[in-house]
Amino acid sequence: MKKTAALIIAASERDANLYYATRFIAPDPFVFLQMGGEKVLLMSDLEVDRARSQSSADRVLSTSKLAADYRKRKKERPSLIGLIEDFLKLKRIRNLRVPSDFPIAYADSLRKRGFHLTPKPDPFFEKRTVKSPAEVRALETTLRHTEAACRAACEIIARSTIRRGKLYRRGKPLTSEDIKKVIHLSLMERGCVAQHTIVASGIDGVDPHNEGSGPLKANEPIVMDIFPQSIRTRYYADLSRTVVRGKASPKLKRMFAAVWEGQEIAFRTIRHGADGSRIHEAIQRRFEQLGFKTGEMNGRMQGFFHGTGHGVGLEIHEPPRISAGKDILKAGQVVTVEPGLYYEDAGGVRLEDMVLVTRQGCRVLNRLPKILEL
Amino acid sequence: MKKTAALIIAASERDANLYYATRFIAPDPFVFLQMGGEKVLLMSDLEVDRARSQSSADRVLSTSKLAADYRKRKKERPSLIGLIEDFLKLKRIRNLRVPSDFPIAYADSLRKRGFHLTPKPDPFFEKRTVKSPAEVRALETTLRHTEAACRAACEIIARSTIRRGKLYRRGKPLTSEDIKKVIHLSLMERGCVAQHTIVASGIDGVDPHNEGSGPLKANEPIVMDIFPQSIRTRYYADLSRTVVRGKASPKLKRMFAAVWEGQEIAFRTIRHGADGSRIHEAIQRRFEQLGFKTGEMNGRMQGFFHGTGHGVGLEIHEPPRISAGKDILKAGQVVTVEPGLYYEDAGGVRLEDMVLVTRQGCRVLNRLPKILEL
Repeated sequence: MKKTAALIIAASERDANLYYATRFIAPDPFVFLQMGGEKVLLMSDLEVDRARSQSSADRVLSTSKLAADYRKRKKERPSLIGLIEDFLKLKRIRNLRVPSDFPIAYADSLRKRGFHLTPKPDPFFEKRTVKSPAEVRALETTLRHTEAACRAACEIIARSTIRRGKLYRRGKPLTSEDIKKVIHLSLMERGCVAQHTIVASGIDGVDPHNEGSGPLKANEPIVMDIFPQSIRTRYYADLSRTVVRGKASPKLKRMFAAVWEGQEIAFRTIRHGADGSRIHEAIQRRFEQLGFKTGEMNGRMQGFFHGTGHGVGLEIHEPPRISAGKDILKAGQVVTVEPGLYYEDAGGVRLEDMVLVTRQGCRVLNRLPKILEL
Repeated sequence: MKKTAALIIAASERDANLYYATRFIAPDPFVFLQMGGEKVLLMSDLEVDRARSQSSADRVLSTSKLAADYRKRKKERPSLIGLIEDFLKLKRIRNLRVPSDFPIAYADSLRKRGFHLTPKPDPFFEKRTVKSPAEVRALETTLRHTEAACRAACEIIARSTIRRGKLYRRGKPLTSEDIKKVIHLSLMERGCVAQHTIVASGIDGVDPHNEGSGPLKANEPIVMDIFPQSIRTRYYADLSRTVVRGKASPKLKRMFAAVWEGQEIAFRTIRHGADGSRIHEAIQRRFEQLGFKTGEMNGRMQGFFHGTGHGVGLEIHEPPRISAGKDILKAGQVVTVEPGLYYEDAGGVRLEDMVLVTRQGCRVLNRLPKILEL
């Protein structure tokens, strides 16, 4: 069998596979090679000492030393790819397994030099989708912080006063931006960073990724979707709740009950070996049965038109998906369960919890209750 | 001339080129095509309506509608690449210009279908390195927030009490973590998010990217490097200051003066048309003249072993660089000027400001003073 190395060239700050493989954070691209279990990093002068003390690599080589050695032998200045070629030639490796998002410019340059590159479909590291007990604990910790932030937001909404259909706090209109700030400060206090937090009320909430803005209204649903990353562990959590300050309309109450029932369908059927698409379709069918249609109406998508869930870990969206794609779930995976219903005449409803897939079923990691009317 | 389209497939949340081209944030990958000035997006059901209202694209197409149309004609379910092929065939486009980090798996699939892909070296959008007045204002605003956070940190350090060589606040040891929290909360209050903030004292500060941890010591340098992103505008700032609570050693004072002088060399020589490598080398030479050698000593890099500066914009590190590479500066670029000196026997010193390159020279965007001893 021909020798193959795994190769990643990326900034681990933005590449979860590279962080997973090295447990080392750097803002600029560096080279990761794995050959027969040995992990080797090629690092710049700026990062070489830190990589030696902080990374999980077996060997950390200095690109400036490799380049100096190369110049002595070949009388020319090497490119980064030249250094990689030089290093791999010594090891007699011509076959490289790379992630599906490996950069085309590096790929073209390596292929021109005679290397055989095989992009591996995601997940690049199979093990990354299956969480260790320590990883599950890290995810749960981030989730606890997220629930605390959501609770803080709910308390402020619950305590707001209603005047002419709008929410007020300390005499001023209470806005999406106010609630997002409460959530972000609460998370930062707990060592977590959130961006693009959704606090969307009324028509804003009918678009599942609209972040929401402006004054919050009474008697209309407020969709909150919070997905921070722990600064220390780098593991995410993902949580959605929908609340109404005041009275929910009868349709909204039915939507809330349906979405909750959709979650329960997933909780009952998620287990090791289950096909995500079956779970997703069962929820779609149940919504149809309850009279909640999906499709384009009045020129916009309405109903339930996103996936049921996705893996959460070092990335906020990672394999597996619980959606039309036929991903088979494995014990140890942590996935969201987040059905939703969105109608122009009632607003949006989304409820999202995280579950750990087990041999027999799943364990819901959330503790925060689901309360519609505050 | 053959028709060429620009193609990006990425999540704009993590891809600054795609955000720059669309001004639209999405957490999952989508397709961007630009042909003869027209910008077209292919979006999932989840994002299609939001993209229509929020993005700067000329046309937003629904992948599910395109797929339904495809299935009718060809009796099979298309992949994302199949949809792109179908769309480009109609336009008679076979040539695609892609970013250098375009994913290899998509590239291989497109090439197999007969497309000619040319990765364009960075910057993919030349204009992105040259900031408009509105972009400069956004960068300055983030910088003002960063300076406010740094000032808050300095105040706490200045007010700390010294006992047996360590800093104390309210009777407890003052730590790197405490100062980072102050900085992060101050930034969050101002709508900015920072990660990997550096507050590194003593030996930690000798490694330029060590984030620092544990109790802060008196009479030793504390390197602070703060680089947040504005949540609203997405433009970054990058700021470093070095302070001592108590008395700086004579060597440290000389290092501080040398690094400041290094900055002044850059401020005097940065202008439209200047070669970044010349500026970087002039600073290296001056440090040598002043007796500050660079290289491996005691098995670790010491002296000045990182670049002098880098562009700042929608990414914290973007072209151009002021370093060994021969980047030619252009009016309108915003770059950092951040020489540093690092020695085991004295600690680290780094001072970093941001400047706007102009026709005649440069304008320093910072207002925060540089004070060594607090």
